Amino acid sequence: MDVLAVGTVALDSIETPHGSVDRALGGSAMYITLAARLMAQNVCLVAAVGGDFPSQYVDSLEAAGVDLGGLEIQEDGHTFAWAGKYHDDLNQRDTLYTDLNVLETFNPIIPDHYKTSKIVCLGNLDPSIQIDVLAQMNNPEFVILDTMNYWIHKTPDSLKDVFGKIDCLMINDSEARDLTGEVNLFRAARLIRDMGPKVLVIKKGEHGALLFAGEDIFSVPAFPLEHIRDPTGAGDAFMGGFAGFISGHNNITLDILKQGVVHGSAVASFTVEKFGPDRLLSLKPSDVTGRVEAFYELTSIPSM
Amino acid sequence: MDVLAVGTVALDSIETPHGSVDRALGGSAMYITLAARLMAQNVCLVAAVGGDFPSQYVDSLEAAGVDLGGLEIQEDGHTFAWAGKYHDDLNQRDTLYTDLNVLETFNPIIPDHYKTSKIVCLGNLDPSIQIDVLAQMNNPEFVILDTMNYWIHKTPDSLKDVFGKIDCLMINDSEARDLTGEVNLFRAARLIRDMGPKVLVIKKGEHGALLFAGEDIFSVPAFPLEHIRDPTGAGDAFMGGFAGFISGHNNITLDILKQGVVHGSAVASFTVEKFGPDRLLSLKPSDVTGRVEAFYELTSIPSM
Repeated sequence: MDVLAVGTVALDSIETPHGSVDRALGGSAMYITLAARLMAQNVCLVAAVGGDFPSQYVDSLEAAGVDLGGLEIQEDGHTFAWAGKYHDDLNQRDTLYTDLNVLETFNPIIPDHYKTSKIVCLGNLDPSIQIDVLAQMNNPEFVILDTMNYWIHKTPDSLKDVFGKIDCLMINDSEARDLTGEVNLFRAARLIRDMGPKVLVIKKGEHGALLFAGEDIFSVPAFPLEHIRDPTGAGDAFMGGFAGFISGHNNITLDILKQGVVHGSAVASFTVEKFGPDRLLSLKPSDVTGRVEAFYELTSIPSM
Repeated sequence: MDVLAVGTVALDSIETPHGSVDRALGGSAMYITLAARLMAQNVCLVAAVGGDFPSQYVDSLEAAGVDLGGLEIQEDGHTFAWAGKYHDDLNQRDTLYTDLNVLETFNPIIPDHYKTSKIVCLGNLDPSIQIDVLAQMNNPEFVILDTMNYWIHKTPDSLKDVFGKIDCLMINDSEARDLTGEVNLFRAARLIRDMGPKVLVIKKGEHGALLFAGEDIFSVPAFPLEHIRDPTGAGDAFMGGFAGFISGHNNITLDILKQGVVHGSAVASFTVEKFGPDRLLSLKPSDVTGRVEAFYELTSIPSM
């Protein structure tokens, strides 16, 4: 497989100033793979759902080309369900409920034919589970990890453990600050890379993203959008776009990482245009290529 | 003159988590001209100070090459004085006091040999004063205006008036939102340009700046700095760097505007490295050129 995502497949109920959806297809592994499949041939996920998981969601993911051999369906369980309401500025949200359901006992088993996957995306999960997943893998070329404030505070030791086993940490700015106690993002980045990750991507939402690799820093803005309907999943879609892009290259150089960040930003910018995965599902590779071109226009400093 | 700045020369008392200064050289016209002189030959200011204004500050500005023929010294008045304290994250500050003093009756008289200045920078002042200044000018090539929330709420009508007489509005993101009631910056930018300014620059502090001109949008990040000592004057230095750069070009094209924004960002990034104008005073044109080169490294998307 080119890209394996291990994380959640969920039922999301989302309210934003621009509308709402109830029990829509959600979850980190879903967003990652739907984004990655735009730039990679063989994309698969490992996640668990309950017997209540709608069969049309399975159909949608399969039709989009996501291999679901690693989707464990616990017939007598319920799917992880989350509900959130975004504030007017879309930068903050309140969680209305989180029903872990099948996630409470989720213990990912990696199918044999996934174990040689080139790129591994570890969506936000308990770091000890992320470590278990990596122990099952057969020498992946590049491992990308997401986490969140909850694990930073609750399980700092296993988080440090998993940091030593990955290639790239991909977190948002508030998490970077939380992880280090540093307000300044560039000092925070230095401290985080001292913890293990050779490559760090800090996602800043409407302010874009920063890539740290070696002594290099690369900055990409968010794509200018006058209408953002639902920010849910943008960070996971970013990871998927990044992973899908780099999976197509034999040698993951600094230039490939930079291009990966631009592709991640492009896919994320589409994702927020509609609710849930609606825009991602209708997206074509040529749409992504077109938006990547627009990023050149947006950021290229004319030569003097 | 290449660049004329009309605004304030002040005595600033500043406290940040990294130190403090008392009655340091401050003010918008000071920061604008100290930045602009790095890229322009003939730079002048119009502002008022009191008899308490230290003669060594006059000497510093003159030594830096700023023409002070427009500095009105009211011997029996006191210089505009401001004191502020920054929060730990340096993004917010509390004003401790604002003593307008000579500013209360400031009525800028533009010396004759300044009236043909090519680029006019109108620092934050009452918009009716900004209109008076423009009425004294002899067909400047490019007029850049700053304003602040106070005038947006207090004198919206004269602000709209002055918007019709300028080429470029340069404000920060919270002011753009305040001016339009729009949370989304790209929608806000559209509304602001409908008010008159052909060119709009929105400064986003640690998140960089956006240029809007015609149908084009250009995004430049802030320079990565691990140590920011004092953000005071960064926005004015940005305007000065921008103005100084574009003043050297006969035809102010989109490419020149983009390069101007990068030069403004470069000068602003130096400004915050030390307190008050200390870093600006020691800066050389080659320092700016070097940092502009670093912006290419920071933002260039490798070709696919």
